[in-house]
Amino acid sequence: METRTVISEFAGTLLLVFFAVGSAVLAADYIGTVGIALTFGFTLLALAYALGPISGCHVNPAVTLGMLVAGRISPRTAIEYWIAQLLGGIAGAAILFLLAKQVPGLKTSGAFGSNGYGDRSAVHINTGGAFLAEVMLTFLLVFVVLAVTHKVAVVGFDGLPIGLALAVVHLVGIPLTGTSVNPARSFGPAIFAGTDALEQFWLFLIAPLVGAALAAVCHQFTHPRSGDLLDRERAEA
Amino acid sequence: METRTVISEFAGTLLLVFFAVGSAVLAADYIGTVGIALTFGFTLLALAYALGPISGCHVNPAVTLGMLVAGRISPRTAIEYWIAQLLGGIAGAAILFLLAKQVPGLKTSGAFGSNGYGDRSAVHINTGGAFLAEVMLTFLLVFVVLAVTHKVAVVGFDGLPIGLALAVVHLVGIPLTGTSVNPARSFGPAIFAGTDALEQFWLFLIAPLVGAALAAVCHQFTHPRSGDLLDRERAEA
Amino acid sequence: METRTVISEFAGTLLLVFFAVGSAVLAADYIGTVGIALTFGFTLLALAYALGPISGCHVNPAVTLGMLVAGRISPRTAIEYWIAQLLGGIAGAAILFLLAKQVPGLKTSGAFGSNGYGDRSAVHINTGGAFLAEVMLTFLLVFVVLAVTHKVAVVGFDGLPIGLALAVVHLVGIPLTGTSVNPARSFGPAIFAGTDALEQFWLFLIAPLVGAALAAVCHQFTHPRSGDLLDRERAEA
Amino acid sequence: METRTVISEFAGTLLLVFFAVGSAVLAADYIGTVGIALTFGFTLLALAYALGPISGCHVNPAVTLGMLVAGRISPRTAIEYWIAQLLGGIAGAAILFLLAKQVPGLKTSGAFGSNGYGDRSAVHINTGGAFLAEVMLTFLLVFVVLAVTHKVAVVGFDGLPIGLALAVVHLVGIPLTGTSVNPARSFGPAIFAGTDALEQFWLFLIAPLVGAALAAVCHQFTHPRSGDLLDRERAEA
Repeated sequence: METRTVISEFAGTLLLVFFAVGSAVLAADYIGTVGIALTFGFTLLALAYALGPISGCHVNPAVTLGMLVAGRISPRTAIEYWIAQLLGGIAGAAILFLLAKQVPGLKTSGAFGSNGYGDRSAVHINTGGAFLAEVMLTFLLVFVVLAVTHKVAVVGFDGLPIGLALAVVHLVGIPLTGTSVNPARSFGPAIFAGTDALEQFWLFLIAPLVGAALAAVCHQFTHPRSGDLLDRERAEA
Repeated sequence: METRTVISEFAGTLLLVFFAVGSAVLAADYIGTVGIALTFGFTLLALAYALGPISGCHVNPAVTLGMLVAGRISPRTAIEYWIAQLLGGIAGAAILFLLAKQVPGLKTSGAFGSNGYGDRSAVHINTGGAFLAEVMLTFLLVFVVLAVTHKVAVVGFDGLPIGLALAVVHLVGIPLTGTSVNPARSFGPAIFAGTDALEQFWLFLIAPLVGAALAAVCHQFTHPRSGDLLDRERAEA
Repeated sequence: METRTVISEFAGTLLLVFFAVGSAVLAADYIGTVGIALTFGFTLLALAYALGPISGCHVNPAVTLGMLVAGRISPRTAIEYWIAQLLGGIAGAAILFLLAKQVPGLKTSGAFGSNGYGDRSAVHINTGGAFLAEVMLTFLLVFVVLAVTHKVAVVGFDGLPIGLALAVVHLVGIPLTGTSVNPARSFGPAIFAGTDALEQFWLFLIAPLVGAALAAVCHQFTHPRSGDLLDRERAEA
Repeated sequence: METRTVISEFAGTLLLVFFAVGSAVLAADYIGTVGIALTFGFTLLALAYALGPISGCHVNPAVTLGMLVAGRISPRTAIEYWIAQLLGGIAGAAILFLLAKQVPGLKTSGAFGSNGYGDRSAVHINTGGAFLAEVMLTFLLVFVVLAVTHKVAVVGFDGLPIGLALAVVHLVGIPLTGTSVNPARSFGPAIFAGTDALEQFWLFLIAPLVGAALAAVCHQFTHPRSGDLLDRERAEA
């Protein structure tokens, strides 16, 4: 086990959940949906530049699955990352819960930044709609992650589009499901939100993984595998 | 036909329409005009870094026309791109339509993120004003695209200004026409919005193409053609 | 005369005034102060990457003065730029005026995105306060421009901080004076706004130039002149 | 004493306090919490690119402590920076106070952009909660600063994540404490805000320093010390 990479995924997921979910729990009345979406995006952007060189900064089991399907990491690394991400998400939600308790009158049960569908969605989206939404939202994120970390991309220009893609999926998805696209981000807060949130967790586990796998498959049609030449490289050769 | 580039344009336009137009259809009440404008800008920024190395990430027939007029691509490539973009825009709007149907009470006819003038404009801009607006809005976008992908620009710093230029033209233009600057973005949603939107589509086809051609012409006065020297290069030579 | 550079300054100032002032004239009710500030910042950011390699993309007589005081350009270039910027600002405001006339009920006299103090300030700031505000606001912009285009800066990372610095000075200054920091941006709209705006123009000419000159002087204390060594370079030598 | 670096820290802290705290004092009613958070983030981003090559652009005693604990600067440099930052923060607040006095009816006592807990917090967070919040908020900022300026990071991609990390901690923390994460930013305004603010200053001195030290310690677990090899470097060696 590469200790640094696992610590990096644990710490990154902890910080993402604490800050990004924290913006929804602690500051929603002050910053609105745009503010929450920017917090998710900017937090991931900052973490991507901070932890990207160490572990790739997946901080998201769906991203790790996409990397696995695209053949960029080994199954063993994927499992290590998944465990670290899950524990990081729980730890981040726990610290957030502790902090939220210090705000008089703040309700920590029920929503607590968890994801939902049906009655637990702001627009009451139905189950199929929530599933489709999470597949599409995760597709964009993972498709962008795979593409901008591919060998054809310019070095350094990965954290910026990745962070802003996460902002996009929150701008569109917060009214629908609260936007998961990340089972670790969904699970931690769901523990503290209570039974209703946990009962709906299955969707925010499966749909993001389906979207990520789909993105990894489509990625093969736009981006050459590591050993392949781009059309323009072939023309030059 | 370069398969990867055409798939790239199809997928990119699909994702742009689904997410950016989707923010207007699904989340307008939550994120407002600023949120929608940021969604357009951030989505294009992310796609530019993801697909730019593959196809240039035009995802917009007006951008492709600008590239053609500036002599950067062949007519054959332009035609391939236009078809891919048009189909991508329709596919993105179709998936968005399917998703919107899962939200109880969401009206999918009428506006559906389509562009409009006169009674279909938030500020009731007249036809001439809408045409002038779309010419100017598209001019900025295509002028920026041509300039930041020119050989004098620093490599990597293209997706950032392109994405934020698209945000700008939405911040200014959403109240006027909803901002097209992209016939593929206008056509897909118009199909689902209905007859009124389709009747106004001609303007959102012609005005962006005029603006793009104008930008390509003006580009020649600020930026040297590929074989020319900059003044400072001439001084050094 | 370097034709390309002068055309670049003319076109850049035209586009900055049309889009950024345009966001205030056409879209203020939809995007608010944050949206207007982002439009100014993002427009300058995009133009900086598009036109920076051609003319430096000053698009602002105060920036040009700062460059002159810092010894980066000749007096002759400064004069050429000032004329191009002034004409560009007028042309941008004229096209904006023409467009605004196509929106039924839109009032184009009075404010029209012009700057003001006293009764023409949202918070009724007094004349001395407006002068101090414009000096400080312009100081930040020009100090950042000089620093990030200095030889110690990393190539490419100039348009981003410059654009966001312009967003900052609008976030802070719009309630005070509408934020000028740019005499060319103030003059064009003032012509169309009418007598009251023109009578206050002197402040938005002088205060930005004072702020810019002050920034260029302070710049010498933080950044070594071109021939000087940084402390760390001296240590290595 | 390296004169340029000390002037850089003084000027940077002055500008950060004047503009970012200024946005809260002068423009809060116009730009809201999101606008204030963006002003903090964008100002630091711009300063990071402007002054980073000179002094590292800490402009924050907590960042300087983190750099000291991580072994990146000497105790002597830290002391010089702390003094410069403290004086810069006071100077920035003084100019802001002078400007605010020119706005009729603007109340400059009481809040004046100072930080607070209990009755001086928007959500009345208790003392322990405020302490925990400031530790976590500062942890993110300093953790990101240390990571993106580490040798494994891509050159140039430091100011962007640092600035947006500061935006994040304000999006989350403004409702809680107004967000300090920076004793120099807290002290200057507190002088002008009055006795109540000064009585609570201890927390905004200690908690950010604790958070910064903690970040520097955790940084050692994710990022190799300068002489160490990364896992992948070891594999290649």
